[in-house]
Amino acid sequence: MRVLGIDPGLRNLGWGLIDADGSRLTHVANGICHSSGPDLAARLLSLFEQLTDIVARYSPEAAAVEQTFVNKDGAGTLKLGQARGIALLVPAQHGLSVGEYSPNTVKKTVVGVGHAAKEQVAHMVRVQLPGVQLTGPDAADALAIAICHAHHARSGGLLSRAVQRAGA
Amino acid sequence: MRVLGIDPGLRNLGWGLIDADGSRLTHVANGICHSSGPDLAARLLSLFEQLTDIVARYSPEAAAVEQTFVNKDGAGTLKLGQARGIALLVPAQHGLSVGEYSPNTVKKTVVGVGHAAKEQVAHMVRVQLPGVQLTGPDAADALAIAICHAHHARSGGLLSRAVQRAGA
Repeated sequence: MRVLGIDPGLRNLGWGLIDADGSRLTHVANGICHSSGPDLAARLLSLFEQLTDIVARYSPEAAAVEQTFVNKDGAGTLKLGQARGIALLVPAQHGLSVGEYSPNTVKKTVVGVGHAAKEQVAHMVRVQLPGVQLTGPDAADALAIAICHAHHARSGGLLSRAVQRAGA
Repeated sequence: MRVLGIDPGLRNLGWGLIDADGSRLTHVANGICHSSGPDLAARLLSLFEQLTDIVARYSPEAAAVEQTFVNKDGAGTLKLGQARGIALLVPAQHGLSVGEYSPNTVKKTVVGVGHAAKEQVAHMVRVQLPGVQLTGPDAADALAIAICHAHHARSGGLLSRAVQRAGA
């Protein structure tokens, strides 16, 4: 299963793709989309076009987006929300289901603790995807989200098989 | 000039179209997009598809979106931001410039005061667009945003012509 992870942001939107074969993970690609344009609508369109291009080029079979941390800065939350709308739209347009995980769930899955520092996340992404070249911290976070989704999809799959066996 | 006004919301997204010929305004259509789907990504996709259909059907030449009121409810702001991302994206995808106006600017332009009640806005929309049938309050707000944009585009146009004359 090829998984696209997205760490949404208006200025820098991180993305990362992995292949998951059972518990075996392989790095495919990672990067950061930078939005540009004279106004907000143009910047959102630029993110949309870059993400659409990534989905068309790499054909992921599943996607996951980080659940945004709602902070006290209303204007910042709104900006993030707008970028997040695009991050959720593009995979849905291509028929992919989109998982959502809180930053704590991602960190717990990838690092083992919920309040890990950014450097720890990047370190564990490197350990789990040998040979990966990280484009930047946002791309490392996006790969962590993809790893988290692969892990949960796998345990979900194991669980549903166990339930089927128990019911059989 | 045909103007599309959008009042963004995740549950109910109001839209309204008017034709502006100088100071003469004519109603074209108005309505409300309701989002549906099993998850957030599917709901955003449903809004995207409905708005894309409206733009394709009515071919507006300009668009305007209400500037979201950033309130203390972070989760609400985030939801609104996600819907607003879609509202800004669709017109930009069709090459339209997208104006943004605060609720107060819209009310000042349409009603004459910045803190008008929703009923006053709907009333003044009916006065300025004789014969209009309003689909609901969100559609009335969307038409008010379109009226506001037509007014500002017109005064901007008059101003730039005056500046050209003064410079000639």
